[in-house]
Amino acid sequence: MILERRICKMAKTDLEIAQECVMEPIEKVAAKIGIPADSLEHYGKYKAKLSFDYLKSIENNPHGKLVLVTAINPTKAGEGKSTTTVGLGDALNRLGKKTMMALREPSLGPVFGLKGGATGGGYAQVVPMEDINLHFTGDMHAITTANNLVSACLDNVIHQGNELNIDPEKVTFKRCLDMNDRTLRNITIGCGAKANGVERKDGFNITVASEIMAALCLADDLMDLKKRFGKMLVAYTYDDKPVYVHDLGIEGALAMVMKDAVLPNIVQTLEHNPVLIHGGPFANIAHGCNSVIATKACLELADYTVTEAGFGADLGAEKFLDIKCRLANLKPNAVVIVATIRALKQHGGIALEDLKEENVEAMLAGCENLAKHIDTVQQFGLPYIVAINEFATDTPAEVAALEKWCEENNHPMSLSQVWAKGGEGAIDLANKVVALCDQENNYAPLYDLDKSIEEKVETIAKKVYGADGVDFTEEAQVQIAKFNELGWDKLPICMAKTQMSLSDDGKVMGRPTGFRITVRELRPSLGAGFIVALTGKVLTMPGLPKHPSALDMDVDEDGKIVGLF
Amino acid sequence: MILERRICKMAKTDLEIAQECVMEPIEKVAAKIGIPADSLEHYGKYKAKLSFDYLKSIENNPHGKLVLVTAINPTKAGEGKSTTTVGLGDALNRLGKKTMMALREPSLGPVFGLKGGATGGGYAQVVPMEDINLHFTGDMHAITTANNLVSACLDNVIHQGNELNIDPEKVTFKRCLDMNDRTLRNITIGCGAKANGVERKDGFNITVASEIMAALCLADDLMDLKKRFGKMLVAYTYDDKPVYVHDLGIEGALAMVMKDAVLPNIVQTLEHNPVLIHGGPFANIAHGCNSVIATKACLELADYTVTEAGFGADLGAEKFLDIKCRLANLKPNAVVIVATIRALKQHGGIALEDLKEENVEAMLAGCENLAKHIDTVQQFGLPYIVAINEFATDTPAEVAALEKWCEENNHPMSLSQVWAKGGEGAIDLANKVVALCDQENNYAPLYDLDKSIEEKVETIAKKVYGADGVDFTEEAQVQIAKFNELGWDKLPICMAKTQMSLSDDGKVMGRPTGFRITVRELRPSLGAGFIVALTGKVLTMPGLPKHPSALDMDVDEDGKIVGLF
Repeated sequence: MILERRICKMAKTDLEIAQECVMEPIEKVAAKIGIPADSLEHYGKYKAKLSFDYLKSIENNPHGKLVLVTAINPTKAGEGKSTTTVGLGDALNRLGKKTMMALREPSLGPVFGLKGGATGGGYAQVVPMEDINLHFTGDMHAITTANNLVSACLDNVIHQGNELNIDPEKVTFKRCLDMNDRTLRNITIGCGAKANGVERKDGFNITVASEIMAALCLADDLMDLKKRFGKMLVAYTYDDKPVYVHDLGIEGALAMVMKDAVLPNIVQTLEHNPVLIHGGPFANIAHGCNSVIATKACLELADYTVTEAGFGADLGAEKFLDIKCRLANLKPNAVVIVATIRALKQHGGIALEDLKEENVEAMLAGCENLAKHIDTVQQFGLPYIVAINEFATDTPAEVAALEKWCEENNHPMSLSQVWAKGGEGAIDLANKVVALCDQENNYAPLYDLDKSIEEKVETIAKKVYGADGVDFTEEAQVQIAKFNELGWDKLPICMAKTQMSLSDDGKVMGRPTGFRITVRELRPSLGAGFIVALTGKVLTMPGLPKHPSALDMDVDEDGKIVGLF
Repeated sequence: MILERRICKMAKTDLEIAQECVMEPIEKVAAKIGIPADSLEHYGKYKAKLSFDYLKSIENNPHGKLVLVTAINPTKAGEGKSTTTVGLGDALNRLGKKTMMALREPSLGPVFGLKGGATGGGYAQVVPMEDINLHFTGDMHAITTANNLVSACLDNVIHQGNELNIDPEKVTFKRCLDMNDRTLRNITIGCGAKANGVERKDGFNITVASEIMAALCLADDLMDLKKRFGKMLVAYTYDDKPVYVHDLGIEGALAMVMKDAVLPNIVQTLEHNPVLIHGGPFANIAHGCNSVIATKACLELADYTVTEAGFGADLGAEKFLDIKCRLANLKPNAVVIVATIRALKQHGGIALEDLKEENVEAMLAGCENLAKHIDTVQQFGLPYIVAINEFATDTPAEVAALEKWCEENNHPMSLSQVWAKGGEGAIDLANKVVALCDQENNYAPLYDLDKSIEEKVETIAKKVYGADGVDFTEEAQVQIAKFNELGWDKLPICMAKTQMSLSDDGKVMGRPTGFRITVRELRPSLGAGFIVALTGKVLTMPGLPKHPSALDMDVDEDGKIVGLF
């Protein structure tokens, strides 16, 4: 993580720490959790996929405990959910609890831009860090291929006589690349000669924003995934009827392209504990959780599974609990809410550049943001604990004040030092999580699926964001009427909202009240199985900064990488 | 191969034959040629990459014999070069000769379109066929990523103040996807708001047409590849100065992206002999040969290496011998020229739909095409043999007449039945190839590098195509003057010409005389290290047919694929 690195200038980079790790052969790591060596499809010595047959053989195993790691509304650097997930998993293993972690796959595009890797940080990392952040086992590339096969076949149908009567101005499915490339956001394709196809406006998403990714992450298995592909909406006809992938006749080809990508990937932490990394959908226009297949495999294999969901609890946890757990019939046992003193100060009104300075008062004011996320988790009927992800700039006074705030408000908490110490830094957290998991809980999603789209959105806005209500633009209202008519209204809602704030305005810190949420647009993700409600412009194709990380990357003659964060 | 399948309706498909093969673990296949198990980076049980360290450890081994398989000008179905290469390699192994094969990696895009797989056919195939034709070990995806990173960084420089003074109308480097997608040939990018980058015309190539691919295939190792990346031309400035990847500062990042893709892939034939499949550049705007790294590894490991080069001898063999062998300092020992009676009849004037009918006269007239390719190989100073790739429709009278023609003209020949019989079908061919390899030869490229661009093109046109001369369009002449000025004129020439004919008109069959070649455009591939001379419009992004193969593809619940040819 970039900010962490900048603060701890004397410390090693994540890459240096990762490269110092003497990894164990992946079959040895897998054996710890009882996975036999012949159930692995190797990708080099330190990465493997669990085989098709093996997944089938464990599918009736009883499930272990499921722990979700979520966070407050983050600063731009993130609060360290992945780092905490890895460190907590390592700590549980140190306590002798058979534990696996389920994480999202990093997107390659942002790696060349600004963002750090997505494999944790410091001494709570997953390795081989370079491989996971680069091509890994090719899942992202398979998704890119499947996505663009849909587009190529769609435009081919239009070009070859348009038997499906597709209106080129009503194509909803975009192309994708796993690259930060702003010039591909809005493009015109099919220019020039007639042989180059029919000209129309199009655009590229980054691969993680593809519905192929969202569908992968909610599928039970390859056959379910194939069905989901068939249901994906790609366009409307000239007379406004929906056109699905099934109408293109290529769900079989897409499933073929995805036949290996559907299998979860096993790697190891720096402490040689097994981690499944599989799937990584956007946390705004998609649900931001790793695959159901990976989470279930962990639950079937381990006594404890630690997983995370994108952004803060208002987005990640809500979707994990309202969409993923509901659709996959998962029973979560406890929630860890990660906060940093830095971010709490930001929520208390401090500017990014001043977060290094001690400010107990601002931090305590910012705790209101944390309080709202705790309230949300309580509404879902789940036990929770606050994990403070320690930074080098945290002062003893700040830490003491935060501990006192938690105590006074009866919030279980633990100081987590996983970045600096690995699993050893989360022993206290792990012990407390074990105790939480032994509690009975009343987990239930916040809304019923048979409510109207408006009611479902309002429930989330009021209960999770603390809004007074929701305004639907005229466009959104027209869409809702249409979706009702088409029978798409019984799906869960996937909110696309800024992660920086509880409101739909990214500049509003803390715990805002007396505000309303505006839903501007709705998008059906029928293959994934949810309706996306957009509260603002969501960028589904990032750009590169003026000095992209790519400029600092290199590989030497021994194949050793530098400059990958 | 599609035509073969249609003719032999009773026979099994290539996929069925491939799926029946009980493959050996790849470490067992590798051990046959002396590759130790710990030198392999596994990709599943049946695919692996040779490790970086292992390649270094063998680089001073003496080289074995090098056999090139080329062909006459093919029909649309191809003449069976890959099939012959695999069958001949299996046959040499049956004779007790330690033999490896070096093949090109198939492109994924055409798999969804019309083209069959590129892993041989019938009982002369490389397996796992499905994996090789799909994502394989991810090399194509790495190339796509590297290529599009160049484009993203280039457009980012233009967007972020354009410090390099790049003229957006003079960008020469295109984006790419491994997909047949005609609507991406000509596009306008950066549309809409200013935040979406600078609007300009662009286009996508299919990945195998990327210069990244050509550079990979001519590189000695990763460090050489990095250097080549730096040299790639991407654009010109407003004052017409060349802009290179080095100016973008990302050759290190590109090398990082390609660090695994640079390692050759080992797989097996149906007869469990080792094959390296690595790299597969277009055979028109690039040189159409597998990687130098793979070919050298084969030569270092085996007594015999059988390899092939794209299209007929006028393109594939010429480039193999004038570009690849020269740049990599390889010493070829013999050339196999593949012909089919079907294609000879086509060169004798028979239409595609009538090729099933016996026609000895037409076939003998078509032998003139074969005679020219033999003449070309002789000019390179190499011993050769004609291999007739048997088809079910060949009649005894046709075979006898062809044997007689070879005998009368003193051309060594062999009837190859590898499609039906595997290695057993090429025992005679293998014995004759061994004898040819024992001959001394006078291999030399056809032209000196220090000749002018015009002289080099004319040499190829006259000696290889049988043309009377070459006309350079005004555009081409301007480019040549510019290239001379920039010092790019000492590179070898990579001709982009139709593969269907010896002339630059794809409809002219047989052995045309009294014709001239027109060079319309020149393109510098400075990273690959050649100048491309285009004799007509070369399509670098194919389209899908009305009924793409994707419609017939599927995968069942056990992960078994159908409909992949």
